[in-house]
Amino acid sequence: MINIATHPWISGLLGDEEMASIFEPEAELKRLLRIEAAWMRALGEIDGIDASDHIAASIEAAQIDPQALKAGMTEDGVPIPILVRLLRKHLRPDQATHVHQGLTSQDVVDTSLILALVQVLSLLKERLGLLDQHLAEKQRAFGNRSITAFTRMQPAMETTVHEVIDRWRQPFAELIEDLSDLQNKVGVLQWGGPIGARAHVQADALGASFAQHLGLKDPGRDWHTDRTVIVKVTQLLCRIATVTGKIGDDIVLFAITGSDHITFEGGQSSAMPHKNNPVKAEALVALADFAAGLAATALRSARHEGFRSGRAWMLEWLTLPQLCVTAGAGVRLAKHTLHDITSIGLE
Amino acid sequence: MINIATHPWISGLLGDEEMASIFEPEAELKRLLRIEAAWMRALGEIDGIDASDHIAASIEAAQIDPQALKAGMTEDGVPIPILVRLLRKHLRPDQATHVHQGLTSQDVVDTSLILALVQVLSLLKERLGLLDQHLAEKQRAFGNRSITAFTRMQPAMETTVHEVIDRWRQPFAELIEDLSDLQNKVGVLQWGGPIGARAHVQADALGASFAQHLGLKDPGRDWHTDRTVIVKVTQLLCRIATVTGKIGDDIVLFAITGSDHITFEGGQSSAMPHKNNPVKAEALVALADFAAGLAATALRSARHEGFRSGRAWMLEWLTLPQLCVTAGAGVRLAKHTLHDITSIGLE
Amino acid sequence: MINIATHPWISGLLGDEEMASIFEPEAELKRLLRIEAAWMRALGEIDGIDASDHIAASIEAAQIDPQALKAGMTEDGVPIPILVRLLRKHLRPDQATHVHQGLTSQDVVDTSLILALVQVLSLLKERLGLLDQHLAEKQRAFGNRSITAFTRMQPAMETTVHEVIDRWRQPFAELIEDLSDLQNKVGVLQWGGPIGARAHVQADALGASFAQHLGLKDPGRDWHTDRTVIVKVTQLLCRIATVTGKIGDDIVLFAITGSDHITFEGGQSSAMPHKNNPVKAEALVALADFAAGLAATALRSARHEGFRSGRAWMLEWLTLPQLCVTAGAGVRLAKHTLHDITSIGLE
Amino acid sequence: MINIATHPWISGLLGDEEMASIFEPEAELKRLLRIEAAWMRALGEIDGIDASDHIAASIEAAQIDPQALKAGMTEDGVPIPILVRLLRKHLRPDQATHVHQGLTSQDVVDTSLILALVQVLSLLKERLGLLDQHLAEKQRAFGNRSITAFTRMQPAMETTVHEVIDRWRQPFAELIEDLSDLQNKVGVLQWGGPIGARAHVQADALGASFAQHLGLKDPGRDWHTDRTVIVKVTQLLCRIATVTGKIGDDIVLFAITGSDHITFEGGQSSAMPHKNNPVKAEALVALADFAAGLAATALRSARHEGFRSGRAWMLEWLTLPQLCVTAGAGVRLAKHTLHDITSIGLE
Repeated sequence: MINIATHPWISGLLGDEEMASIFEPEAELKRLLRIEAAWMRALGEIDGIDASDHIAASIEAAQIDPQALKAGMTEDGVPIPILVRLLRKHLRPDQATHVHQGLTSQDVVDTSLILALVQVLSLLKERLGLLDQHLAEKQRAFGNRSITAFTRMQPAMETTVHEVIDRWRQPFAELIEDLSDLQNKVGVLQWGGPIGARAHVQADALGASFAQHLGLKDPGRDWHTDRTVIVKVTQLLCRIATVTGKIGDDIVLFAITGSDHITFEGGQSSAMPHKNNPVKAEALVALADFAAGLAATALRSARHEGFRSGRAWMLEWLTLPQLCVTAGAGVRLAKHTLHDITSIGLE
Repeated sequence: MINIATHPWISGLLGDEEMASIFEPEAELKRLLRIEAAWMRALGEIDGIDASDHIAASIEAAQIDPQALKAGMTEDGVPIPILVRLLRKHLRPDQATHVHQGLTSQDVVDTSLILALVQVLSLLKERLGLLDQHLAEKQRAFGNRSITAFTRMQPAMETTVHEVIDRWRQPFAELIEDLSDLQNKVGVLQWGGPIGARAHVQADALGASFAQHLGLKDPGRDWHTDRTVIVKVTQLLCRIATVTGKIGDDIVLFAITGSDHITFEGGQSSAMPHKNNPVKAEALVALADFAAGLAATALRSARHEGFRSGRAWMLEWLTLPQLCVTAGAGVRLAKHTLHDITSIGLE
Repeated sequence: MINIATHPWISGLLGDEEMASIFEPEAELKRLLRIEAAWMRALGEIDGIDASDHIAASIEAAQIDPQALKAGMTEDGVPIPILVRLLRKHLRPDQATHVHQGLTSQDVVDTSLILALVQVLSLLKERLGLLDQHLAEKQRAFGNRSITAFTRMQPAMETTVHEVIDRWRQPFAELIEDLSDLQNKVGVLQWGGPIGARAHVQADALGASFAQHLGLKDPGRDWHTDRTVIVKVTQLLCRIATVTGKIGDDIVLFAITGSDHITFEGGQSSAMPHKNNPVKAEALVALADFAAGLAATALRSARHEGFRSGRAWMLEWLTLPQLCVTAGAGVRLAKHTLHDITSIGLE
Repeated sequence: MINIATHPWISGLLGDEEMASIFEPEAELKRLLRIEAAWMRALGEIDGIDASDHIAASIEAAQIDPQALKAGMTEDGVPIPILVRLLRKHLRPDQATHVHQGLTSQDVVDTSLILALVQVLSLLKERLGLLDQHLAEKQRAFGNRSITAFTRMQPAMETTVHEVIDRWRQPFAELIEDLSDLQNKVGVLQWGGPIGARAHVQADALGASFAQHLGLKDPGRDWHTDRTVIVKVTQLLCRIATVTGKIGDDIVLFAITGSDHITFEGGQSSAMPHKNNPVKAEALVALADFAAGLAATALRSARHEGFRSGRAWMLEWLTLPQLCVTAGAGVRLAKHTLHDITSIGLE
């Protein structure tokens, strides 16, 4: 139950295997190698290192045993020093020396995170668009039916299903717009070197080349301690979980008051056959509450002391991938929740 | 110690009386009356109610005993029903009936919150700009001096004070830009009536007039359950507290390693005269940690079930004003923290 | 709205004036003076200082302008250094020198907190006992009636009101027992001096005397950084808010399904006269959610680095009194919520 | 990075494979089968079902494909209904009907959690005892050396290493005592049936037998919504993470001020060979901050509405195993952190 995202059975309800796959160790390792290779190619272009293409190719082809990284990670707090040692082993000493030269571990790990977040936002954007379409379809199918509007958790007045779903859809336009804006911002290279100084005579050209090899933009400086872009992603993820959580809240409310309001497949109670539990809607609520808790830790992890922080950075690792999966699971599950609805409102 | 913001002595360190004054009961009551009066004027314009100006003036001039609202608040969960009863008392029955007609309590309370948040953002924008200027001044005064760059909380390499302060200033441009964007969005009228239906034949014209009397924009519909604009404010407040918290973190780090790094006024230890405690810097850290905790609750309060929520809304009341004061106190105190610095770095 | 606890109208619903009064500035100041005076009497007994009674009496009679503490608080991060200077002013130099001698600010502020927490626990114990009695009364009055048991937020089976209320009462016995245990532990003196060394030849006797003058126990050493007792209080407060929050949750659920389940006074909707909002029950839920958010910050504030922490300590000030009021408000309000119930279940 | 606890390399630093193994899907499944089998044996004893031993043996020997549970989990929100269907398949209809009869899913899942928590507490108790011994050893080895006492993150006065480590050990006695008390409380059967009614003529005898087959105590009733015992475990876990976090905080502080204070193995900076990063100490801080965030969610998950909650229960699943691993990782890592210390203080 530690890893809900990929748990063999719980993931079916509360997980998100597609989102989780972005953060899988194998995918991470591939990104780390890709970044070290891109750095070699950039050094080759700017510094004219002869063997740079050969070194880059050797890095990309390296077979790294994930277990081999563990001891290094434990001692160094990052997997990069041991990874660099392993990469250098297969190269001639004069070539090996160039590997990782001028980078700091955080450059590599943060850039890998960015490559992952680019995928995360892309996946979420596609899913949110689809979810909004599914909502629109339900609105078309059932919109004219009458249903009770709840205010303060009490039946208040009659309204239409159109109005109910409209309320679910209300935050989507701005959410998707903000997500698109963020997609334009998130793809930024992390490069600074040990204290963020970019100690290279042609730093701008080198940064541009490094970024270009990764399909990223070079912000022109490091952002080791300015986590603005990460905070914006976490804050958007929290908004997403809130939006799908509300759909869950409302379906649970309708389900209480019975089949005039909503009927759905699934959730059959084994002990009480007359009863359908709104299981997926409940799960949407649980995921939203879980995301809210992570929001505090994510914010705490955004304050990086000095020129590079270890403790805030580790806290980010513990929090951000989970938040991605939590928000992702909410959107994935909201779609299934809608799909299960067989009727909403009274004709 | 409940109300740090206005506590007679603790507020000097951890509070923000200017920010707190925006949320003072007297200021709130004035806003509530202003909104009910604006509604009367709007009804007058659109529905041609003869006495609307008279009613509005009567509302604006009303002397409401705050204590009188308490019993109503306790029973109704909002102060508006009792307020409306009190306002109607002073009017002829045929006039009294128009007061609040077509509004729901949440319309009034949320619009009042918006009027407050407009002030909050304006105050923060001014202060953040000034804080950035103060940082630039320190950068000019001490920038060429050498100082230790800390990475992973360890002395790493020599750098310049310019670089240190540059790192503090790094998030400011985007923060202030996002704050300005939000200022353009925050000033939105809340109006929907009981279930958000805007039940009026000329709803658009009425909304426009209502908004115009309050200096707000009419978003064209209610946002009773779509708290996007509130979430954006809370998320920005959290970013602000993070930015000032980092300044605190770093000053504490420099202070540890002694007078080569930093000297400042204040914080004299009574028992240990050789020792200056970086009191304000510590307070910046405490405020940032406090804001991070509120972030979770703020997010939880953003999920409003049904057509109007009571419990999420109350949670918002418990959280948002505190977050405003916490972020505000951070910015206020950061300025004083900088002001106390007598020297930073080595010539 | 910053200070819900004493807000002129919101406090009626979400506040707790009785609990808040324990933390009022005047009450705090009185405690600080009482502690400094007790220290003088203890020094008199153990060190044979002639004027100790006179000094103690002078401290107890001192008129301190709360505003005078503010500037000192801002610079020193605690009100004690300025308070000590003010107290010494009224004494002959040879007497003045004894004031606060051998104490550190944290000794005084923490001991004052303990004196407050003794009151907090006493108030809560009395109220929890009464609340359980009120629950028992409702159980006697309505217990035989039938009502729907909800599982997974769905009507599941018929049960009795007795069973419903039994479920509300289920945690009380252990909660009250744990509270009583904690009452026996909480009344501990804080005394260590600057680095907790209790630098006095007769430290044990002095500690015993100091504690005895305050009606506290001497744990035999400082607990400047070991906040176990504080954590236990916060964790108990969180449990209390959870218990009253559940009562709120359930009443809201019953209220949805109408007058067969529950009827109560109050919460009359002004716009929809057929509708009673379960306002107080909603507020119980909001208070519980607010307490949950504070739990994280309270725990963060329990980790005190070094021999005395400033930042964690300040965070405790920002959090703990609020948590006391939040838990207190829940218990207070739960009683009123029950009182409003006119009928529960079907005969 | 989703599953730090078992991540191939990150787990070396931030994970806890031993603790995680308690919550592994295979271990869970084994517990679920063990519970269903114990129920059969208890039914056999009390109701005299002939085939009960045969059914129990069949359940214990069942080969369940974890993937087969997934679809059921997704629809039912718990793995039990599908598991029961799978178990019944292998039995004659007249025997199959007895499987799970009189239980509700929550009975099985909660009892499984209890069996896991018994292991969790046992593991933690052993480790905490060992950690305290390791601290005592360091105290013996380096206790007489002098070192700086930090107060408010500033070097304050000279003290001894004995005093420093004493401060780390200060919470241990009460923590271990409370852990032992909790061990006596945690092993409680969950059994209530659909609405907690224990609908059986010999409920007491049946509960006693069921509990006895599992090595648990029967509390005499269900605790579906009274999560007191779970809350106590989470609150203890949070205290543990706080205690190990402080050791991390302090080592980081000592490391800043250099080799007079502390030297340790590991954390060699690749880019800056003069620099040792206190990697494990930083990780202790990150784990403590992560635990603090989970504390809020854990508390939120403790409020179970109605007779059984789905959403709060799912939130508990998302939170509690992680908190176990986080606290466990802290204790595990604290030992390694101490082990790495080669010198502390000045002779």
